[in-house]
Amino acid sequence: MSTATNHQFRLAARPVGLPKRSDWTVTEEPVPTPADGEFVVRNQYISLDPAMRGWMNEGKSYVPPVGIGEVMRAYAAGEVIASKHAKFPVGTHVAGVFGVQQYALSNGKGVMAVDTKAAALTVYLSALGMVGMTAYFGLLDVGQLKDGETVVVSAAAGAVGSLVGQIARIKGCRVVGIAGGAEKCRMIVDELGFDAAIDYKNEDVAKALKQHCPNGIDVYSDNVGGDILEAALGRLALHARIVICGAISQYNSTTGVKGPANYLALLVCRARMQGFVVFDYAARYGEALQAMGGWIAQGKLKTREEVVKGFADFPEILLKLFAGENTGKLVLQV
Amino acid sequence: MSTATNHQFRLAARPVGLPKRSDWTVTEEPVPTPADGEFVVRNQYISLDPAMRGWMNEGKSYVPPVGIGEVMRAYAAGEVIASKHAKFPVGTHVAGVFGVQQYALSNGKGVMAVDTKAAALTVYLSALGMVGMTAYFGLLDVGQLKDGETVVVSAAAGAVGSLVGQIARIKGCRVVGIAGGAEKCRMIVDELGFDAAIDYKNEDVAKALKQHCPNGIDVYSDNVGGDILEAALGRLALHARIVICGAISQYNSTTGVKGPANYLALLVCRARMQGFVVFDYAARYGEALQAMGGWIAQGKLKTREEVVKGFADFPEILLKLFAGENTGKLVLQV
Repeated sequence: MSTATNHQFRLAARPVGLPKRSDWTVTEEPVPTPADGEFVVRNQYISLDPAMRGWMNEGKSYVPPVGIGEVMRAYAAGEVIASKHAKFPVGTHVAGVFGVQQYALSNGKGVMAVDTKAAALTVYLSALGMVGMTAYFGLLDVGQLKDGETVVVSAAAGAVGSLVGQIARIKGCRVVGIAGGAEKCRMIVDELGFDAAIDYKNEDVAKALKQHCPNGIDVYSDNVGGDILEAALGRLALHARIVICGAISQYNSTTGVKGPANYLALLVCRARMQGFVVFDYAARYGEALQAMGGWIAQGKLKTREEVVKGFADFPEILLKLFAGENTGKLVLQV
Repeated sequence: MSTATNHQFRLAARPVGLPKRSDWTVTEEPVPTPADGEFVVRNQYISLDPAMRGWMNEGKSYVPPVGIGEVMRAYAAGEVIASKHAKFPVGTHVAGVFGVQQYALSNGKGVMAVDTKAAALTVYLSALGMVGMTAYFGLLDVGQLKDGETVVVSAAAGAVGSLVGQIARIKGCRVVGIAGGAEKCRMIVDELGFDAAIDYKNEDVAKALKQHCPNGIDVYSDNVGGDILEAALGRLALHARIVICGAISQYNSTTGVKGPANYLALLVCRARMQGFVVFDYAARYGEALQAMGGWIAQGKLKTREEVVKGFADFPEILLKLFAGENTGKLVLQV
């Protein structure tokens, strides 16, 4: 192993607005050799997530920021190629926080061994990974979804949104997705079984919500923030729950985040808006994996990954998220 | 009765910004005579509440707006002076939505007979009225207060805020009040037993919250919105609850409501922001009245009413609320 080279993207600067190539430096070092209790993973797929933008900022959040000079944090999946760890022998497929690099050294903390016969490796970065856990616990636990309710989800063709909508359908709910562009809207209705889609790039979202949610919104799963959050607040049913999963429209703002001016709808509608962090559900991942795995096996839940090749183009490929160019889970093939 | 005259403030126009005298007209009519199942109340005290500003606006809310030409909606307390209603004989003291007028005709719906030996009539517009119910259920039910937590309350010298803080103290919590001016701050600490006070007119609220809430805020009871809501969002503890009770800083805005730009703190802190309307708790008012009455009798809960004489000056006296001039519950003596 010692002759192979590991390429890494390390954070070089804290981005202002959209991250750009010069916010990272590419470094080269020998692939590490595992000590006792360690193993080395060859990353095959790196998960590209909106949350990565937040990790690049200074300041307190739900996890510490990536330090300047550190390997960029990322979920990834790959194969163990060298091991002195009993639980992760060579040949094991694993998923974990392995970073934007070709090889990662790990002590096994937070790492999940995965079965590539049950599902493709990329699915463990999607429905059977953090994204799936986020959709499942956000909708069912934070959102307290009840059968027959009306669910609206933004970024509905995205990684989390496409799963949220499908889970809500499985639970017998009416599901309206908000996405950008005719093709995404067609896909979530025709392929994923949403009841209706709203194309925020070409429709008045508030008006369309009124049309598609005649009895108001019971659960709104928000991945975008901004104007779409306001439109949803304007259409809440009594006792609605807004699940704050993300705010991709605001992450790269250089003029400050726009707060929802009509938040007093929470009072009028006796509603609540609640944030969550999926890690808090770690003890219950098994429950979600079993449910999601079952639905996938039964053909009730479709996972979509958009796999893009090109480790060297990581900075540019990441931007697809913020341009809304991806459909389903964006994954970088190493 | 038929020779006596009833003066009334009727809504004449929907206010822009602060309500002004010309937004009402004063009308005069004979005091009504009750039909079977009705009674007439002579209003002695009229409750002046921030919510009245919202009732003057057009548009859907938790109650229909006051119609142009209708008597201005208000809670009031008084004495039955004529009755054909078995449950409310002449001489009964009552509280209900009797409006800004000297006499009101009622069929008893939503009216509570009150015992003026147990508490002064004004207290039934305060701790033992809607204000008390709002404080009790907002803090304990919506806020899910737990013993030993840190509670922050805005408009802390006001009607609801002063009760919220005292209930939290009774429940063994650390209580920090935010109020405007040194005298209000002194009062809530020295007279009402708050642990600390922040004078938002003379202090940096964010900095003061950091000092007084070293472990963060577990429950924030918000009556004001705006910058103070943002400061509280910036200091939340994990799993914090924000109870949206009102937003007095925003009710008269002519430039639109300011939404909380840092609402993503809800995500970082796994926190929630929830609105409520006290009427939803009607079935449980008895529970709150028993608790609040008990605390008052034991001297643990102090009620403060600021009683201002002058029915004819209703429009100007109402403005004391929005100027922050009142301490405790503002009541108009008829």
